[in-house]
Amino acid sequence: MLADLKLPEDLKKLSFPQLEALAQEIRTLLINTIARQGGHLAPNLGVVELTLALHKVFDSPYDKIIWDVGHQSYVHKILTGRLDKFSKLREMGGLSGFPKPDESPHDIFATGHSSTSISVGLGLAKARDLLGEQYKVISVIGDGSLTGGLAFEALNNAGHLKTNLIVVLNDNEMSIAPNVGALSTYLSRARINPTFYKIKADLEQFIQRIPKVGAVTFRYLDKIKDSLKYLVIPGILFEELGFTYVGPVDGHNLRQLTKTLAEATRHQGPILIHVLTKKGYGYPPAEENPSKYHGVPGFHVKTGELPTVSGPPTYTQVFGTTLTELAALDERIVAITAAMTEGTGLKSFAETYPERFFDVGIAEAHAVTMAGGLARAGMKPVVAIYSTFLQRAFDQIIHDVCLQELPVVFAIDRAGVVGEDGPTHHGVFDLAYLRMIPGLTIMVPKDENELRQMLMLALKMDKPVAIRYPRGQGTGVLATVDPFGPGEAEVVRPGEQAAILALGPMVQTAVEAADLLCKAGINCAVINARFVKPLDRKTILHWARRVPHLITVEDHVLTGGFGSAVLELLAEAGLRKVQISRLGYPDHFIETGTIPDLHDLYGLTAEGIFRTVTNRPLTLAGGEKRK
Amino acid sequence: MLADLKLPEDLKKLSFPQLEALAQEIRTLLINTIARQGGHLAPNLGVVELTLALHKVFDSPYDKIIWDVGHQSYVHKILTGRLDKFSKLREMGGLSGFPKPDESPHDIFATGHSSTSISVGLGLAKARDLLGEQYKVISVIGDGSLTGGLAFEALNNAGHLKTNLIVVLNDNEMSIAPNVGALSTYLSRARINPTFYKIKADLEQFIQRIPKVGAVTFRYLDKIKDSLKYLVIPGILFEELGFTYVGPVDGHNLRQLTKTLAEATRHQGPILIHVLTKKGYGYPPAEENPSKYHGVPGFHVKTGELPTVSGPPTYTQVFGTTLTELAALDERIVAITAAMTEGTGLKSFAETYPERFFDVGIAEAHAVTMAGGLARAGMKPVVAIYSTFLQRAFDQIIHDVCLQELPVVFAIDRAGVVGEDGPTHHGVFDLAYLRMIPGLTIMVPKDENELRQMLMLALKMDKPVAIRYPRGQGTGVLATVDPFGPGEAEVVRPGEQAAILALGPMVQTAVEAADLLCKAGINCAVINARFVKPLDRKTILHWARRVPHLITVEDHVLTGGFGSAVLELLAEAGLRKVQISRLGYPDHFIETGTIPDLHDLYGLTAEGIFRTVTNRPLTLAGGEKRK
Repeated sequence: MLADLKLPEDLKKLSFPQLEALAQEIRTLLINTIARQGGHLAPNLGVVELTLALHKVFDSPYDKIIWDVGHQSYVHKILTGRLDKFSKLREMGGLSGFPKPDESPHDIFATGHSSTSISVGLGLAKARDLLGEQYKVISVIGDGSLTGGLAFEALNNAGHLKTNLIVVLNDNEMSIAPNVGALSTYLSRARINPTFYKIKADLEQFIQRIPKVGAVTFRYLDKIKDSLKYLVIPGILFEELGFTYVGPVDGHNLRQLTKTLAEATRHQGPILIHVLTKKGYGYPPAEENPSKYHGVPGFHVKTGELPTVSGPPTYTQVFGTTLTELAALDERIVAITAAMTEGTGLKSFAETYPERFFDVGIAEAHAVTMAGGLARAGMKPVVAIYSTFLQRAFDQIIHDVCLQELPVVFAIDRAGVVGEDGPTHHGVFDLAYLRMIPGLTIMVPKDENELRQMLMLALKMDKPVAIRYPRGQGTGVLATVDPFGPGEAEVVRPGEQAAILALGPMVQTAVEAADLLCKAGINCAVINARFVKPLDRKTILHWARRVPHLITVEDHVLTGGFGSAVLELLAEAGLRKVQISRLGYPDHFIETGTIPDLHDLYGLTAEGIFRTVTNRPLTLAGGEKRK
Repeated sequence: MLADLKLPEDLKKLSFPQLEALAQEIRTLLINTIARQGGHLAPNLGVVELTLALHKVFDSPYDKIIWDVGHQSYVHKILTGRLDKFSKLREMGGLSGFPKPDESPHDIFATGHSSTSISVGLGLAKARDLLGEQYKVISVIGDGSLTGGLAFEALNNAGHLKTNLIVVLNDNEMSIAPNVGALSTYLSRARINPTFYKIKADLEQFIQRIPKVGAVTFRYLDKIKDSLKYLVIPGILFEELGFTYVGPVDGHNLRQLTKTLAEATRHQGPILIHVLTKKGYGYPPAEENPSKYHGVPGFHVKTGELPTVSGPPTYTQVFGTTLTELAALDERIVAITAAMTEGTGLKSFAETYPERFFDVGIAEAHAVTMAGGLARAGMKPVVAIYSTFLQRAFDQIIHDVCLQELPVVFAIDRAGVVGEDGPTHHGVFDLAYLRMIPGLTIMVPKDENELRQMLMLALKMDKPVAIRYPRGQGTGVLATVDPFGPGEAEVVRPGEQAAILALGPMVQTAVEAADLLCKAGINCAVINARFVKPLDRKTILHWARRVPHLITVEDHVLTGGFGSAVLELLAEAGLRKVQISRLGYPDHFIETGTIPDLHDLYGLTAEGIFRTVTNRPLTLAGGEKRK
């Protein structure tokens, strides 16, 4: 049916049985495509009916639908003219896995990070009012995203401004992992529409117990609290913030959804529609284990089997294992994450030390400030957050940790380009936004062995420390690392004609480049910088004096990054003789692509370094240009 | 009494009449000291009784009291051994205007930015539990601070973790300006403790109207909503988030406060005590106009008169006036601030264009994302936030504005050092945290005339633009600025022996330095950089080729700042001959001090530049060293 319909317009003509058949067709397409391309399976299976209902009731792109986070926008893409491109989901030059205004006018706003949709919706709605337009604005937000402070700030403001805004709360009882906050408990209560008979009985009891005004004591409050809980209608929290609450609505019942959304269009003021959906709906393996099938690299459709990953453990796994080991030796170590327990490798830590593990919800800022509190009171908190999401706690790193020199360790996962998730998820700004913070030590391990060593060192330093490491597997070569102190670089190999100052896994790339250069008769040193702050001044200045050409290599933007730190050092030291080349990302947002493709594109390869040193492309013995 | 008591211990022995007398004594001290030193008057007058009650009930520093924002901690400082230093409030080397752990163990956590106290408190509380300690943790937060998303994230997490934590909501019905969100409306309702008779009558009505389960329609909901509002006890919002709510309590009644706080210590789990205070309590001018007396530079005790500021208008005022003028010509211009309407000079804009003005509360992240939404729908939003607070919206600038190239203008006030508010408030990181963001233009006006010109240019560019300008007065010299385009620097004066590349008001300092150098026989060029991004490559490279020594001057940290941008440019261009000196702040947090004192301390003065160029101190004609 999909290919024959004019979408989204034709949805309005379809009967409910036809829509249900279409939902089936979409599910099959989702499963087959994501099985091959990888992507966010469970979230999209959960919103098939909701997306159909939205496009049936509203007139996109005249009406504006904003998808919070946006990983659940595949069905929306299929329904808005991108069916033909769906086979190239998450490929370089293909279809983005997130809403992207460049792709379609139906993607009104780019998303990727969580909890933005209500703020965006409120902005669109107020612009509409001021410009005398009439369109509807619909923010679709998950219950997980609602735990982000930004969403609360927006609810608070929208409830005050009172303009027409429809918030669809897509409540699947979990963000990526199961939800953890009080809000989640609250929503669970709201899910059970209380019978009014129960209310009435409790009410009568309550009223009988009411003492004279003003004499309400603590003990009394405690006693009546439980009965009071049943007094409130579901959604009172949103009502108190100025929203009209409607729900809960069955998110897989097209009739009920359509009816409720249509009624909402006639409502004046902000309204919140509480929709209950099931992640993975319609594909049994994903229904049973929605966390596992949240985002997948691909899978076997019949069995649900995920590809077995062979090869060495990832940096993430090494971090998790090491921290769990270290926690056994020091009970002051605690771990904090922001709704990324599995993603940051902390699952086994959480299972081993449940009391010392804090998943605070999608609340990076709170994670960091709470870590400050824990550190002040004598703990050694390790905050594990992806590089791109840690941007959300930038002020807290400065104000609540570094200003007070508190011993918080930031384990920054997914640093550098991350691949298919694209521009909203690349972790290419962290060195630049961390480097200017006084008192913060910044480490970058060249491999998983060094990551272990750095984590041990960081926990001993009694200072704020950031360790940034990439997505993906380590080298698999287990090696003992000679202990090193803060600010100590490693000379990997000497050389006279040039020196490559490399950061993180780029050290291995630099070694490969040095091998190629050696074959071409150029004797090139390789230095593993290890520390972006403090820099190993002595070693860097030594090599800067010794070689005519210094090349810095980082999986990070060039502006303000590691290479700039080196420039600052040389300028301070008055060293002007050496030529400096900096390799890294240029000054534009980095596109979607596999990590190797992106490295290749931006010259972060052995060949790229070879070219930089020699000023000519690498030619292999046979005359064939190396890829 | 103050001088004779052993504080805070002796508070426990005092009778209520004695405590009330002490409160009077403290008020007098506050008024007299702040009249002379300047500082936060109204907030501290409002918490005299609350602070006395806290120190009477709890045992600080064993028990931990965290002051949100911290500008209301003066009474706490007076009561915890800092009476003798109180006369040096907010002076360089004196007493900080905010909690500072270096000053006293009673200051358990440094604050300055808003909404951190519940996160910090939760961290302390969980550390206490894990280490088997017994102390109490008390987070004192204002109703304004509660609108910050961080506070909500913490409430949500605390309600889930259920540990013992006392949150004192200091509700004075305003943050700095009157509150604006739905939460504020909610709290107003909670302030009126509803009589239970009223509840009962409404309840009966409500119950009669309840239809059969499941048949609740929209129309019906609308009808019963009003009566439902009275159903809930005050504080249901906090109860729903897992807190026990107590209140409201009269914040100037020492008996009631002490009793309530004492009872709270016996409570298990998180508890929120709703305290009603009056800003400026006890000093009539401040009670009548708490906004005016929130933070003052000093005043006349008898009359309440604030010092009349003579001289030219401030950058803040010029920004506000210009924006209001421009808004008359383009109705797409809207202004957004985060609880800083007066501070950012937007008061007259707000009065002239109330529909186009948004004060979103202490919610910088939402301000920026909402601006993204407004821009997407065709408006030209100008977001005015202080440099230090914009740190809180770092990710939103990247993700919700620049990634999508939306035409949002960031008016960054209080850039550079800000003086007496000290390290938490200096705006010295902005160039470093903005410079790496692709697609963002960054402008820095040398004076108020250029600020006007830049604002006009920014609003024409249809791109994300940041303009950063300092606290304080402009030059007062009205001048027409020749129009310039993005990335166009200005050669203020030519010269051969050195070139000073200066940023913002440092251009004037550079001109003075060039005068001094000229008298010393050194012919020095001065260039007004104007743009940190894009740099005027052509002009900078031209001068870098022409002179032997280039000096960059910025009111900003050296790490990653404007000077580093120049280093990057020269490295890219392969220009190594010129010597580069960068003037700015070193890599530690900058202390409290007046702006001129801090500039002097870090060499951001004509003499500092003279020294840098000549490598010797400036000696005046008479042989006297110039200050």
